[in-house]
Parts: sequence; C-alpha cells; structure tokens
Amino acid sequence: MVHVHIPSVQTEEQWTIGALIEWLARFGRTDEGGVTRLLYSDTWQQAQLALKQKMTLAGLDSYSDSVGNVFGRITGTEESEQVILTGSHVDTVVQGGKYDGAYGVLASLLAVKRLLATYGPPKKTIEVVSLCEEEGSRFTLTFWGSNNIVGEYDLANIEGLFDQNKVLFEEAMEQAGYPVTAYKSQARHDIAHFVEVHIEQGKILEQQQHHVGIVSHIVGQQRFTVTFFGESNHAGTTEMMGRKDAMVCAANAITLLTSLANEKYPPKLRATVGSLQAKPNVPNVIAGEVSFTVDVRHHHQSVIESFVEDMHDILQTMNDQYSVTHSIERFSADEPVQLDFQMQQVAVQLANKRGLKAMEMVSGAGHDSQVFAQHIPTTLIFVPSRNGISHSPIEFTDIDELKHGVDLLQDILYYLAYEGADDDEL
Amino acid sequence: MVHVHIPSVQTEEQWTIGALIEWLARFGRTDEGGVTRLLYSDTWQQAQLALKQKMTLAGLDSYSDSVGNVFGRITGTEESEQVILTGSHVDTVVQGGKYDGAYGVLASLLAVKRLLATYGPPKKTIEVVSLCEEEGSRFTLTFWGSNNIVGEYDLANIEGLFDQNKVLFEEAMEQAGYPVTAYKSQARHDIAHFVEVHIEQGKILEQQQHHVGIVSHIVGQQRFTVTFFGESNHAGTTEMMGRKDAMVCAANAITLLTSLANEKYPPKLRATVGSLQAKPNVPNVIAGEVSFTVDVRHHHQSVIESFVEDMHDILQTMNDQYSVTHSIERFSADEPVQLDFQMQQVAVQLANKRGLKAMEMVSGAGHDSQVFAQHIPTTLIFVPSRNGISHSPIEFTDIDELKHGVDLLQDILYYLAYEGADDDEL
Repeated sequence: MVHVHIPSVQTEEQWTIGALIEWLARFGRTDEGGVTRLLYSDTWQQAQLALKQKMTLAGLDSYSDSVGNVFGRITGTEESEQVILTGSHVDTVVQGGKYDGAYGVLASLLAVKRLLATYGPPKKTIEVVSLCEEEGSRFTLTFWGSNNIVGEYDLANIEGLFDQNKVLFEEAMEQAGYPVTAYKSQARHDIAHFVEVHIEQGKILEQQQHHVGIVSHIVGQQRFTVTFFGESNHAGTTEMMGRKDAMVCAANAITLLTSLANEKYPPKLRATVGSLQAKPNVPNVIAGEVSFTVDVRHHHQSVIESFVEDMHDILQTMNDQYSVTHSIERFSADEPVQLDFQMQQVAVQLANKRGLKAMEMVSGAGHDSQVFAQHIPTTLIFVPSRNGISHSPIEFTDIDELKHGVDLLQDILYYLAYEGADDDEL
Repeated sequence: MVHVHIPSVQTEEQWTIGALIEWLARFGRTDEGGVTRLLYSDTWQQAQLALKQKMTLAGLDSYSDSVGNVFGRITGTEESEQVILTGSHVDTVVQGGKYDGAYGVLASLLAVKRLLATYGPPKKTIEVVSLCEEEGSRFTLTFWGSNNIVGEYDLANIEGLFDQNKVLFEEAMEQAGYPVTAYKSQARHDIAHFVEVHIEQGKILEQQQHHVGIVSHIVGQQRFTVTFFGESNHAGTTEMMGRKDAMVCAANAITLLTSLANEKYPPKLRATVGSLQAKPNVPNVIAGEVSFTVDVRHHHQSVIESFVEDMHDILQTMNDQYSVTHSIERFSADEPVQLDFQMQQVAVQLANKRGLKAMEMVSGAGHDSQVFAQHIPTTLIFVPSRNGISHSPIEFTDIDELKHGVDLLQDILYYLAYEGADDDEL
C-alpha cells in the first residue's frame, strides 16, 4: 500500500455541495484543471480513504467491500434488512471533470447527513456508496463496482485484463489494498432501491430550462466495427473508374448511415461514427482497407434492431457500387433499461413541491443505475450540464443547480427510507 | 563505412534482364519477397557498390558523385562533350518490388553493353546512371539524386531532415561513405538527353494490350490537407440535430469531391483521399476534428487549378451545413511536365520497326524524368505492370515485357548516341 497524503478532512468540514466537490476534486486534479482518478490508482485510493473518513464524520458506519466499493451505513430502526442504497462512482476518465460520478457520491453523503440531523435514523437502512469503478477508463471493463454488488461480476471477469502500462487488473487491486486472495462474492440481496443523482452530460435540461430530469430509460446501445476491403493502389496511375477505393466507399456509407438516422429515426435515435482507421493511410495511395465504428443508441430495443437491419442493407449496396467487400463485427450490445416507474411519478411531485421544474427524460449515456435497474427498483435524477460538456476539465454545473439535485435526492430518500415506499402520503 | 557482403558479381555473370533483376533484388530482399532498399542504408550501399563493379564488367568507366549517384561512362568518339544519360533510381519504398527503379538501371546497363559489343564506342558519350534516391521513403525529400545532377538541390535542401529513427540526413550520408565535408555541387551542363525506362505502375498498357508506352507528359500534382473543426461531444447525450460532427462532414466532403472528379473532370483527372485522421477517434465520442489529404493530378495545370477552385467552393458550403469551420493547407505542388516531343515520334517508329505495339500515354506517377525534363530533352518509356500493382512485393512484369523495354531503349540510345539526334535516317 502506498503512503497517501489525505487533505485535511478532519479540520476542513465544509458541508456544502460546492465545498465537497472542490474537496474531492483535489484527489487527482490535473494541471489543466481536470481530474484523472483511475481505478485503483494512488489518487483513487486516497479519495476512497478520505470518503470513508468523511462518512464517519457524517455519522455513518463506513466500510469497504473486497473490490474497493466504499459504503457509509445507517441502520434502520424498523426495517433494517431493507437497504436504500444511494451514490455513484468515484473513478473518472483521463482528464475528466469534477462532477461526473463525484457529484452523486457527495450529494448522497450530504443528503443523508441532513436527514440524520433533522429526523434521526430512518426506518429502513440507508447506505451511501462510492462505487469503485464505472468508466472503464483504466481497464476495458465497465461497471465493475455495481456489477459486483448485484452479483453479475466476479474475479472471472477480470482475468487477463491489463491496463495501458501492462499492469494486470489483479496486480492493480493488490497495490490498492484489495488482494484477490481476500476477494469475496459481493452479491447483495438486501437492497430495496438504488437512487443516483448525476450530471446530465447533455444539453436538454439547459435548453429546456428545467432544474432536474427524472430519467425514465437509459438507452440501449450497440457498437459495430464496419470494415471495407478494397484494393490499395497508386493514386496517380490508377484510373478513377477502375478503383476499389475503400475510403470513398466508407465516406459514402457514413453519409448514408447518418441520413438514415436523421430521416427515418428522428429525433431520438443516435448514430455516431466516432473512429475511423484507413490502411495504408498515406496521401498518394488509394486506401485498400477502411474500418469505422458505428455507435447506435435508443431507448427501445426494437428501434435499434430496425436501424441495424437498415444499416446492413445500406452496407450491402456498397459492395457492388464500389467493387469492395465488407465485414461487420458487433463488439458491444446493451439493451435499454427502464427505471422505476412509480418512483418517477413520486419524484416529479417531490420536485414540484420544492418548486423545481422537473421533466422526464431518457439518458443517452450509461450509468451505474442501469446495472442496478436490472435487479432492483432504481431511480436516476439528472441536474443540468453547462453546454452538455462532460469528460472534460470544463465540465461544469452551477452550485444552485447542484443544490437542487441534493434537495430532491434528500426528499426521495426520506420518502423511501423514512416514510416507506408503500406510504402514499407526500 | 560498414563491412558489406557483395553477392558474387565476379563469377555469376548472367547478362539477361531477368537474371539481372533477380541479382539486384538480393540487396534488401525481405521475408515477404519484396525489396526494402532505403537511401544510404547498408543494402543500398551494397547495391550501389555492386552496380559499380557490374558497370566495370560491362566495359564502362564507373564512378560515384558526392551524393552517391553511380555512373558508368563510355566516352564518345566524336562529340564526347555531349552526354546521353540513361538510367533510373536504385532506392525503393519499404516493402517495394524488384522492378520499380531497378529495372531502369539494369535495362540501361544491358542496352549499353550490347551496343558496345555490336557497334563499339558511340559518337556521343553515354553514361548509365543508378540514381541514389527518388522515392522519398527514408527522408521526406524526393528526387535527391536527379535534382543534384540538374543543380536544383544541394546540401541546403537536406538541413534538419531526420529519418524515422532520428538519424540526420547528413549522418546517413556519412555512414554510407559520402560525408558532407566531401560534397561538391553536382550540377552538370553536359547532358544532351536523358532516357529512362520504367514499369508503368498502372494498368493501361496491360488493358490496352500494348508492349510499350511512350510517355508524353508526367502529370502535375497538388496535395492538400483539409481539416474540419467541429465539436467533440458525447455520442449518447448529444442530440443528432445539435451536433458539429467533423466526421460526418468530412465523409460528405469526400463523397462530393470524388463525384466532382468523376463527373466534371473525367477521365484524366485523378483525385484521391488516401489518408484521414480523426480526433479523439474513439467510438463513443463525436469527432471534434477530422483531417484528410487530397491528392489531385492531371497533365494540364489549368485543369488542376480548376478542380482546386471547385474544391474550395465545395468545402466552403460544408461550414454552414455542418456548423463547422475548416482549413486547407497545400503541402506539395508540382506542375505537369512535357517530355521531348520529337523523340516521342521517333520512339514510336523505332518500336514499330521492332514489331512492338506502342502507345503514347500520360504518366500519373512521378519519375526522375520529370526532374531532368525541366532542364534537358527527356524520354520516358513504360513497360506493363501486372494488374498495375507497384510498391508491393507482388509487383511483377513478365520477362518478355522487360525485354521489349530493353530493346527499345537500345534503339533509342543508338539513335541518340551513334547516329546523332539530327540524323533522320532510321
């Protein structure tokens, strides 16, 4: 275990969401003003240790599980076997912002501290969680934290995974104080509801001038690698008509797939070609091979499937038109997830009681909530993101907007853990 | 200077074009059956040394100049101050074939050896040349050999040039036995005509079933880097309509530029997008910046200029359509070159006398001939390339086709050096 310097949590107790965000951002802050806090890194380790202390200071019983999820628990007075879990993830992408994930952890901690101070212990047990990993930015695995809690993942899922510096996942765990020899299955069956607040990472709330978004679905997504195989040839001596130009073919395919998304599936379906590789990729040689990715998202599986079918048809027509062949490989597929419908209605009412403008919306990004939602009732709340920018040092949400999320979360937790979910009285 | 092993040129004197090609291909042969012989490398040095010996064996006086061009000279009996120079380049691209360049050097050597054996020394001086460099495959400089001979380049042109292994051009010269301290200007004014034979590196001769091509022009070419600047954003949370997607924009631009070439400028103009780079180039992020190259070639400068003007117009329309900005940088520009017209007519007649089907054609590739042609009358002859494939281990020309080129070259050299160019008797 490394020697860690922990910023003075003992003395600097500023229990406001703004101060907490700045405090946590110090773990892994970059010169560019962003945050890089990769799973099991020193800064990650420091952050989780500091959060554990912070939870204790807030009056919670804090503990870690054997993959590094950190919990702060307050046992319920009446139905202690039912746990209302609330939180988000502590890890970031490389050069990420200070809100993505961190906000959800800190908002949960703050909301629970206030509930405790105002109402004392809840009827049901509440646990605040700082999930160890969601982004997949160190290893090619996402949702390691939440998938352990719901029992979907165990050590088998990390076998043979290396980071960019050739460090094995197991080695990274051990270095952070979580040796695999101490691993225990994390699968929990005591969680009655998971509640997460998160920045939107999109522009919808900002553009529509709403304070909070109540998420109804998290989109499903499928990702493909499309490769066209043409013929690499001399750019000067090969006549235009005889070419098997994989670049021109790929360019036309990308144009057509984008038109398909915009014209047949507007406005909810999102299709993105974010990455493209050409071979040999030199100016004076016709590209013999071009690969690109297609990322398709929608909240209805049938719509994704229909788009993918149309995509296959379009790619098929390219073969004759450009004298090429092609392959399509699907390298990721997640079905859309529906969040707890009843709680959505309640959340809208709770928001309105606070004077907050709330709208139902679909999340185009993946979140820990989608892992929990496949097993237990789950609620996901968004606050606005300035210009929709995320995964960037300039990721930003205003303090007042952050406060709205904490307030609503507090009300939801009160509803779930103090009143009981069966209680209709608001 | 490195210790070099030279395949047995002293004993293995097979003076056929097929045997000579195989012999030279041993210098730099790759496991894939190709040839990698980069400027000033060990294999390059071995090849030039061996060629010098081969020239001596053929009865020529051999020498090198101070950049490593190797010459074999036979002094004329009547007009010795007028030199008929013939040859091509000895360097190759990485994983090139055995014909590109090498064929022209060896065909020249063989043709001159035969002329000497049959007719004795010529009236004008003949020099066979193995030019040190044409491809630009080690350093980002092309035509180093020929440009030194015509006096266009000197040491100023190589200042600060490094290869991929951070070796300075000057260091590479010194390692190969050509220290810059011994450099002398190579500019020559005694050359009356340059003649080169080369593989076509295209499919035209093969498709039209002609034995030889008499090149009338070498195309001009301009190369550009076009960059679109959009906005990098989350592929899931950013609505399709609000995107500034540099990839979709680039794809449409490539489609339109190709249509422009095919519809407005067929069939001679060639426009190629061979290279593309996207940023950040990951599947789930909208590309904020995409750069691609455009390589435009034609044998009339006015046509190139017209296309480039149209290209600017098309790119301009992208800005509004995709909410992007763009930049265009021209990083290379060579004007079309016209080869010696009188000699073309003579060459066709000489070919026909041999029973060879000859056609006039435009070269879409660059050759040393274009450097010489800007200073002295120059003739360039093509033989077919199987499937037009070049710069590849599977580059191939049949032995009989190679022989046709040697025969025609021999006749052209006889016409130029034995009869005198003013002599109309064929």
